[in-house]
Amino acid sequence: MTTQFEPLLEPIRTKGNVVLATHLNPDGDALGSLLGLADILELMGKRVFRYLEKPVSQLYSFIPGSDLAETGLDDLAEFVRQSGDDIMCIALDCGDRKRLGKYGPELLKIRPFLVIDHHKGNDGFGDFAWIDPKRSSTGEMIFDLAAELGQAVSDKAAYALFTAIVTDTGSFRYESTTAHTFDVARQLVNLGVQPDLVSRNIYDNFTAERLQLMQRVLATLEILHDGRIAVILVTREMLDQTGCTMEDTENFINLPRAITTVQVAVFLKETAEDMVSVSMRAKDTCDVADIASRFGGGGHRNAAGFRAADTTVDSVWQRLFPVLQQGMDH
Amino acid sequence: MTTQFEPLLEPIRTKGNVVLATHLNPDGDALGSLLGLADILELMGKRVFRYLEKPVSQLYSFIPGSDLAETGLDDLAEFVRQSGDDIMCIALDCGDRKRLGKYGPELLKIRPFLVIDHHKGNDGFGDFAWIDPKRSSTGEMIFDLAAELGQAVSDKAAYALFTAIVTDTGSFRYESTTAHTFDVARQLVNLGVQPDLVSRNIYDNFTAERLQLMQRVLATLEILHDGRIAVILVTREMLDQTGCTMEDTENFINLPRAITTVQVAVFLKETAEDMVSVSMRAKDTCDVADIASRFGGGGHRNAAGFRAADTTVDSVWQRLFPVLQQGMDH
Repeated sequence: MTTQFEPLLEPIRTKGNVVLATHLNPDGDALGSLLGLADILELMGKRVFRYLEKPVSQLYSFIPGSDLAETGLDDLAEFVRQSGDDIMCIALDCGDRKRLGKYGPELLKIRPFLVIDHHKGNDGFGDFAWIDPKRSSTGEMIFDLAAELGQAVSDKAAYALFTAIVTDTGSFRYESTTAHTFDVARQLVNLGVQPDLVSRNIYDNFTAERLQLMQRVLATLEILHDGRIAVILVTREMLDQTGCTMEDTENFINLPRAITTVQVAVFLKETAEDMVSVSMRAKDTCDVADIASRFGGGGHRNAAGFRAADTTVDSVWQRLFPVLQQGMDH
Repeated sequence: MTTQFEPLLEPIRTKGNVVLATHLNPDGDALGSLLGLADILELMGKRVFRYLEKPVSQLYSFIPGSDLAETGLDDLAEFVRQSGDDIMCIALDCGDRKRLGKYGPELLKIRPFLVIDHHKGNDGFGDFAWIDPKRSSTGEMIFDLAAELGQAVSDKAAYALFTAIVTDTGSFRYESTTAHTFDVARQLVNLGVQPDLVSRNIYDNFTAERLQLMQRVLATLEILHDGRIAVILVTREMLDQTGCTMEDTENFINLPRAITTVQVAVFLKETAEDMVSVSMRAKDTCDVADIASRFGGGGHRNAAGFRAADTTVDSVWQRLFPVLQQGMDH
C-alpha cells in the first residue's frame, strides 16, 4: 500500500483494459471522476468498463458518458475474462473497501487494484493507493493525473470533472476549495466547460412542488435555547399536500443551520404513521453523533441522525430537546 | 466618453485624492469593488473617501474596510474642498448616473469623473468610462486594474474583491463566470483569501427573522405561463411582521429561479406605500434587461430590474406580466 502518485502511473500507462468503480450511492464527485477518467483512458486506446451497481440517477444523467455505465455482474465477468492479464481496476472516490457495494469482493479480485481518493479516512486499500486529502475532490485529482500522463482531456471529460469539483466543493464554497481547485476549474473552462450549464443541472433542479414543500417546512421553524437550537418539521400531510416525497426534503436542514446564532439544527421527519426520522447538523460547540448514539443512531460530529419507531414527532422531540440542551451546555 | 481601459490610467496614477462611489442599495460587487479599490489606492499613497448613501448593511459588514465608509454630505464637501484640483471620482459597478443616489449630482461635479463597470447597459457616462460586459463583476475588473498599475493587492483588498466576484457570480455559477474569473479567484486565494470564510458570511448568515421572512415570501409563490414564469412578492407588512428590512430579501429571487421549468423569475417588492421595485432573473430564452428598459430600468440580459412610483404591486404586475409573456414567446 502506498499513497504516492508515481506507482499508479505504470499500470495506468501499460494496461489495456480497465474496470472503473466507485462508492455506493455515488454523488457528483464519484460519477464525475469515474466518467471523466473513463473518457481519458479510452482516448489512450484502452477498453473501459464503467461499473456501477445501479444506473446513474436522473439528477446526474446530464454528465457526459452517464449512459455508458454498466451494472451487470455477468457483463463485468465477461469483460474480465476477455482481458486476461492485461487488466486493472481503479476505485474512485471510495474511502473504504466496504463501500464498493455488493460486488466489491468480485472487483477486489482484479489485480492490480488501484485506489484514487481524497477522503481523509481512507486507509489505502488495494495494491496502489493515491490518497490526497488536500484535494477538494477526486475529480480534481483525475485532472492532475491526465496532466501527468500528458493526456488530452476532451470537453466531455472536462464536463464530468467540473461536475465532480462543483458538487464536492458546494460550488467553490467549502473549506476544501484551494487555489489549485480554481486553477483546475480555469483549465476545464478553457477546455469548453460552461460553468452555468453544470450549475443549472445541479442547483436549478427544483420542482415547484419542492419549493412549496420548503415553504411549509419553514413555516414550522422554531428557535430555542437562546437562538442556539433551531428545529423544523415535515409531516406526511405536507408531502401529500405538495405531491412530494421525503427525498425532496434533501438539504432543507441547511436552512435553519444557516442562521448565524444556531449551533444545532434539527429536522424531524414523520416517515410513516408511527415512524420518526431525525437529522441533526451541528456547528462547532456540540457533538451530535454522541447525541444520536443515545437514541440508537450515529453519524459524524457535525452531521448525525436516528430513527424511532412506535412514536410521534412530538414525543421524540420531548425526549430529544432536554438531551440536546444538556449536550450543548457541557 | 470612452469604454477603453487606458484613458483611466493617467488620472488613477496621478491624482492624490479620490472619491469612490457606487450604486444605490449596493450589493456585494458594489461594496467589494469599492472597498477593495479603496485599499489599493491607499496603498498607492492616496487619500480615499469611500462614499455610500447609507452605512454598510449587516450582511456585508464582514468585508474588510466596511467600517471606513462615509455617508455625510458635509464630510464629502469638506474632502472635495481640501483636495483642490488634485481629485477625481470613480463610480464603481454603477450602470447609470441616476443610480448614484440622492447626492449623485454633487458627485458628478467632481472632475475627472471615472466609471468602472461591467453592466452591458451602461452608456458610459462620466469623463472616462471603462465598461467590460465580459467580466463577471466589477471586482474582477479592479483586480485587472491593480495588475495593470503594478500595484500589490493586500489580503484585505483580496477579501473584498473575492466577495465581489462570489456575490455577482452566485459563487461561480452564473453564465458570466469565465476562465478569467477562475484565474482571478485563484490569485486572490494565493493572496490569502479562504473561500469558505467569504461563503459562510454570504450564505450562512441568516437571522431567524430573515428565514421567517423567506417563508412568508415563498408562500406568495405563483407559477405561470406553463411553468415558465415564477413570481414572488414581499410587502411592507411582511417586513414589519418579521422585523426585517428590504435588504434581508437579497437572493430570495434565486429560489423561484431554481425551479427547472422557470425561464424568468420575478420578485415584486413593495418598497414604500406607493413605490414598487421589481427584480427579474432570466435563464436563456428571455432578455430581461430589454423588458426592464421598457419600464425605465436596466441591467443585464439575465438579471435586471426597475422601479415604479405612485403605483401598487398589483398594478405593476398587471402591466409587466403580458410584456414578459410576449418577451418569452419571441
